Amino acid sequence: VPRTIRLDIAYDGTEFVGWQRQENGVSVQQVVEEALAAACDAPRIAVDGASRTDSGVHALGQTASARIESRLDDETLVNAINSRLPRSVSVRRVSTVGDRFHARFSARGKHYAYRILHAARPEPIGRAYLAWTRFEPAIPPMREAARALVGRHDFASFATAGSPRASSVREIWGIHVLRRGAVTTFAFRGNGFLYNQVRAMVGTLLLVGQGKLAPARVGEILAARDRRLAGPTAPPEGLFLLRVLYGVGEGARSPEDSQEIDD
Amino acid sequence: VPRTIRLDIAYDGTEFVGWQRQENGVSVQQVVEEALAAACDAPRIAVDGASRTDSGVHALGQTASARIESRLDDETLVNAINSRLPRSVSVRRVSTVGDRFHARFSARGKHYAYRILHAARPEPIGRAYLAWTRFEPAIPPMREAARALVGRHDFASFATAGSPRASSVREIWGIHVLRRGAVTTFAFRGNGFLYNQVRAMVGTLLLVGQGKLAPARVGEILAARDRRLAGPTAPPEGLFLLRVLYGVGEGARSPEDSQEIDD
Repeated sequence: VPRTIRLDIAYDGTEFVGWQRQENGVSVQQVVEEALAAACDAPRIAVDGASRTDSGVHALGQTASARIESRLDDETLVNAINSRLPRSVSVRRVSTVGDRFHARFSARGKHYAYRILHAARPEPIGRAYLAWTRFEPAIPPMREAARALVGRHDFASFATAGSPRASSVREIWGIHVLRRGAVTTFAFRGNGFLYNQVRAMVGTLLLVGQGKLAPARVGEILAARDRRLAGPTAPPEGLFLLRVLYGVGEGARSPEDSQEIDD
Repeated sequence: VPRTIRLDIAYDGTEFVGWQRQENGVSVQQVVEEALAAACDAPRIAVDGASRTDSGVHALGQTASARIESRLDDETLVNAINSRLPRSVSVRRVSTVGDRFHARFSARGKHYAYRILHAARPEPIGRAYLAWTRFEPAIPPMREAARALVGRHDFASFATAGSPRASSVREIWGIHVLRRGAVTTFAFRGNGFLYNQVRAMVGTLLLVGQGKLAPARVGEILAARDRRLAGPTAPPEGLFLLRVLYGVGEGARSPEDSQEIDD
């Protein structure tokens, strides 16, 4: 009997071309599809991911969906898939969900975090998981600038030009800027993010934190809908996809999984 | 004017064949020697490291010494070397020391730490810095077994056979076994360690923590001076060289650097 499954996946994006299959290298999607097909004894199974993370971007809570036929129950399937995956990818959970569930189209929201170290020299240990800057970014002006980004806006100024999408309007529910030791963390929650949007927002906020851009300019840049006005795209290694949110009855495993969504 | 310098170095050992120069790949020693020679405008400079860390073993506080001729002061030299090093290696400090200082021969002690995660599945993020085991090692029996290793002993049972050395007698000042969440840390302090000794001790203590070896057996294995009796060599990714200790006036930068040494 065919069934639809949700996969919760963690991975280290360093050695992949990104989530999505590409001609020029190994993608996370490819290794998951191959491991799942082998576990199900099928020639090929398509796996759709909620987020197209880039090369070097990591995931603690990527979700994906697939239509499979297998006698293995969900927990057995986790082990059967993981035994065929490289150490850089780990399936945390497999859940049988309703047939209308699709990891990308059913997603109602996402959480991302971006971490950056300020230090005279980069840190060799863990450098694949932490961006680095020489200057110490000032927190209060970055928080002030971030407030302009929260809410429902057209984020064309923060999307990589040429990326296909029906609309560049998204809603950001919250941005938190935190400092612990020499590490600054930017946490983003929203109903969706354009391609490279989180990294473009971080690159812009860091210009503010460096004193090169006035906090009030960020709202103006947003309103202009022109990518050339915003800051550079921050490097991928600081970025983590933490979690994808779904509505109850649409793949959410618990009410907590959909807590942000009241629309 | 020629001078002797001490270098304090941190590195990620994942992509190196180890500290020491080898024919079959890139070593940390090689990249440091090449960067230092370029910074000093010299054809070649020999750099001696205190510890021959293996492939995959990391260092937060490796020390090395070299005899150089350069007009650059120590702080300028740090930047000149680092600008020529890959991101996986970072010189923390350069200090001009007495001409009799030699990083390896002058060393009076070393600190190492070994970290291992117990979990049903390995963790993709940070897996190069954390060993992994399925079982949860029991702390009290490992602490009991570790006590037998503390003190001045012939550690032949814990040295990789065939490694050259004048004597296999070393003194361990302390072993601490700590648990934080699902991560167990073994901290070792001693006047020196044989090749692979720390990893062989960890592999043996983990057998105790798994219930496969009685704590009292570890003292017997030590006394037998037979490598075949001890446990396996634990994998390299959990091991960190934290610090090398020197006597005051022999390259130590501060009294704290030599606090362990009263002999």
